[in-house]
Amino acid sequence: MPLLGLLPRRAWAALLSQLLRPPCASCTGAVRCQSQGTRDLSPQHMVVREKILDLVISCFKRHGAKGMDTPAFELKETLTEKYGEDSGLMYDLKDQGGELLSLRYDLTVPFARYLAMNKVKKMKRYHVGKVWRRESPSIVQGRYREFCQCDFDIAGQFDPMIPDAECLKIICEILSGLQLGDFLIKVNDRRIVDGMFAACGVPESKFRAICSSIDKLDKMAWKDVRHEMVAKKGLAPEVADRIGDYVQCHGGVSLVEQMFQDPRLSQNKQALEGLEDLKLLFEYLTLFGIAEKISFDLSLARGLDYYTGVIYEAVLLQTPTQAGEEPLNVGSVAAGGRYDGLVGMFDPKGHKVPCVGLSIGVERIFYIVEQRMKTKGEKVRTTETQVFVATPQKNFLQERLKLITELWDAGIKAEMLYKNNPKLLTQLHYCESTGIPLVVIIGEQELKEGIIKIRSVASREEVAIKRENLVAEIQKRLSES
Amino acid sequence: MPLLGLLPRRAWAALLSQLLRPPCASCTGAVRCQSQGTRDLSPQHMVVREKILDLVISCFKRHGAKGMDTPAFELKETLTEKYGEDSGLMYDLKDQGGELLSLRYDLTVPFARYLAMNKVKKMKRYHVGKVWRRESPSIVQGRYREFCQCDFDIAGQFDPMIPDAECLKIICEILSGLQLGDFLIKVNDRRIVDGMFAACGVPESKFRAICSSIDKLDKMAWKDVRHEMVAKKGLAPEVADRIGDYVQCHGGVSLVEQMFQDPRLSQNKQALEGLEDLKLLFEYLTLFGIAEKISFDLSLARGLDYYTGVIYEAVLLQTPTQAGEEPLNVGSVAAGGRYDGLVGMFDPKGHKVPCVGLSIGVERIFYIVEQRMKTKGEKVRTTETQVFVATPQKNFLQERLKLITELWDAGIKAEMLYKNNPKLLTQLHYCESTGIPLVVIIGEQELKEGIIKIRSVASREEVAIKRENLVAEIQKRLSES
Repeated sequence: MPLLGLLPRRAWAALLSQLLRPPCASCTGAVRCQSQGTRDLSPQHMVVREKILDLVISCFKRHGAKGMDTPAFELKETLTEKYGEDSGLMYDLKDQGGELLSLRYDLTVPFARYLAMNKVKKMKRYHVGKVWRRESPSIVQGRYREFCQCDFDIAGQFDPMIPDAECLKIICEILSGLQLGDFLIKVNDRRIVDGMFAACGVPESKFRAICSSIDKLDKMAWKDVRHEMVAKKGLAPEVADRIGDYVQCHGGVSLVEQMFQDPRLSQNKQALEGLEDLKLLFEYLTLFGIAEKISFDLSLARGLDYYTGVIYEAVLLQTPTQAGEEPLNVGSVAAGGRYDGLVGMFDPKGHKVPCVGLSIGVERIFYIVEQRMKTKGEKVRTTETQVFVATPQKNFLQERLKLITELWDAGIKAEMLYKNNPKLLTQLHYCESTGIPLVVIIGEQELKEGIIKIRSVASREEVAIKRENLVAEIQKRLSES
Repeated sequence: MPLLGLLPRRAWAALLSQLLRPPCASCTGAVRCQSQGTRDLSPQHMVVREKILDLVISCFKRHGAKGMDTPAFELKETLTEKYGEDSGLMYDLKDQGGELLSLRYDLTVPFARYLAMNKVKKMKRYHVGKVWRRESPSIVQGRYREFCQCDFDIAGQFDPMIPDAECLKIICEILSGLQLGDFLIKVNDRRIVDGMFAACGVPESKFRAICSSIDKLDKMAWKDVRHEMVAKKGLAPEVADRIGDYVQCHGGVSLVEQMFQDPRLSQNKQALEGLEDLKLLFEYLTLFGIAEKISFDLSLARGLDYYTGVIYEAVLLQTPTQAGEEPLNVGSVAAGGRYDGLVGMFDPKGHKVPCVGLSIGVERIFYIVEQRMKTKGEKVRTTETQVFVATPQKNFLQERLKLITELWDAGIKAEMLYKNNPKLLTQLHYCESTGIPLVVIIGEQELKEGIIKIRSVASREEVAIKRENLVAEIQKRLSES
């Protein structure tokens, strides 16, 4: 993929400044945003997407995942009370008779519904598909209301932390493969978050509300988050300050060891379980060779209600960081965690199926790669045509049609102009502007002698070959290039 | 693709009888239909789909098409008055503030809207995506309310019939490639249909209504269609009988010639233009080598309002037909036509962009292939895993994790069980049941000697190789198989 690779420092700075602006400001090009907060994807967009999705999906398949799909809409009741505060962002369908339906909001809840409905107890699947969210009134905040998600999940009762570690390995493989620059995966555990709250003296009724404040720490400064917790959510200032001490902590497996020694945290049964699992997780991550990419981070809380165990979020880092400089957070590009209770919510008897999974933030990645290509002035071909069929003469449509049929029937990607008598210059210009590498030329002379000319668009060299060798010769040239 | 190929006569009969029953009757397997008329796609479905879509998309790319995507929903006003009688089948979104939206009903209208909105005058694109239709209350009629479409269209002003002929060539390539058995493409022209109506004495105000009756001829007998036209739509019986004479006619290019001699039809300017275009079309089809697959059929009318010129519909034939036997129509598997006025409906100044295109009936094709595989008892692998990492001993998780990391990092598709101490038999059984061809085995002996055993699941043969040669040896074996 020529489009990937590290950028020089200045280009990164330009890219970062664009990332902080809404994508809409820069999409005044070929494809207009639509008023309803969605957009068309042009052929240029599609080429970038296809390459990135191919890499993501082949990683999922490398880890043995099966494909799956669910409908765009679900029964409204399936989706309600799964997303906490964000439920208001769901798109409902109009009541035209029949059940009340809503467009899917993520791919996790439909997966859990599928497992429960089909009584599947074990499954490793990936799912690439669109989801819809009525993000606040406009696209000025840089999000579209229709976007693509790429999920990988492992459902089933297994020995602890083996599937969880594989999820982190997959995130590493994908982010390394995409060559997006340096990255870090923050890891925490919901049981540690809750244990920390208990240890600090947060009343249990406020756990989820305080959790969602903590979740904002990647976008807001600590003092603003503290203000929200104290002034808006009624937390005692000294409790907030105790939390403040914890959420500054991040580090490797040594921080896990350190937290075992923390008298307040280690007295909490839940937190202790979480710490023990994290310790085991780090052991497996070391065997996978990715431990140095992982940071145990007590400020990581994750917004969604359904997580029950380990949680993680991958962020890109500004490259390279200066000595002593704090790495700049470019934003989350992958996230996930363990959700052991969700499937049970759909089972009539409440039978649980433990799950752990991840979601790749492909929209953000598409955007980063597109901006990078723009910065570098890279162009993409939007077609894959290998050969163009041309003629310098009038009244050669029939011969061109016969020739192109031979190519198509041999599986060669070929085009010609839909004109009876196109000019040769127009035909050659079409090849140059669309990046077609080879031209086959037929005229009166060629027809008489039973030959065809093959022209390389790049070198402008032409050679004559016997007509009957055409397909073989082209296949040879294409396999060499 | 092992799943495709001709079926023996008895299997065909069984398949046909299933085709006439609703798919829901036979989908009581792994995946249940949902009450809202949609269904989940299981890994088995996805494998069949992926193979078929790959073939379809690579044909589209072979003909130089670019990819594109549009949002799942459009402004409601974009879709209204485009689909004739069927507009009531649109899914509307609930009014939650903002514009009124509807789920897309096909991929053609969004394409036309895209061209007009972006002032694109020329484009050859393909689009694979879901569309939604509220087909009458239940799925008993064998249709789902969410389904996939695969469209290819050529927009732009070109010399007559060259792009139209290419669309027919594409249908032939795809249906041949899928090895669905013998097929036929019926061709007609909207101008000939209208000219025929005029020649028979149908009042112009009844053209579209009578057209939609004629469209039912592939499902209803002539006498029932005639009854509908006379009793329900108020057509004079002698006019209906004149139409009856025409709609029996089907044949090759000689029928086109014959119609030129038809005094009533050839006096009609529109019909004459249509016949001239069809004559030219057949000339190009002959050069493409597909003329024998095409039948000029005066009973073909096509339901949608937006067609303005040549129209076509591909049907599968029962194979092989006995001498003198009428080929049995298995149903349409591809269709399309020319629509020169649709883009202009979205342009503020009404600027037209002539278009011609086709849609592959992939849902029907998925179903046929799935049924055929069931009939043959074929199984599909739902994962692509190449190697399984196993151990006969306890406490070997660490070694398995190190080993599988080596494989993943070399791009090899590998799995292991998420157990600390799985039994060897369980591990080997997993390979057999999921079709994994190779097992690498590590135990104490192997670890001590610095070797790894490679086992072929099919032959049960095991060989020991040096640990450091593992990746190279596996890659060698995979490339040979």
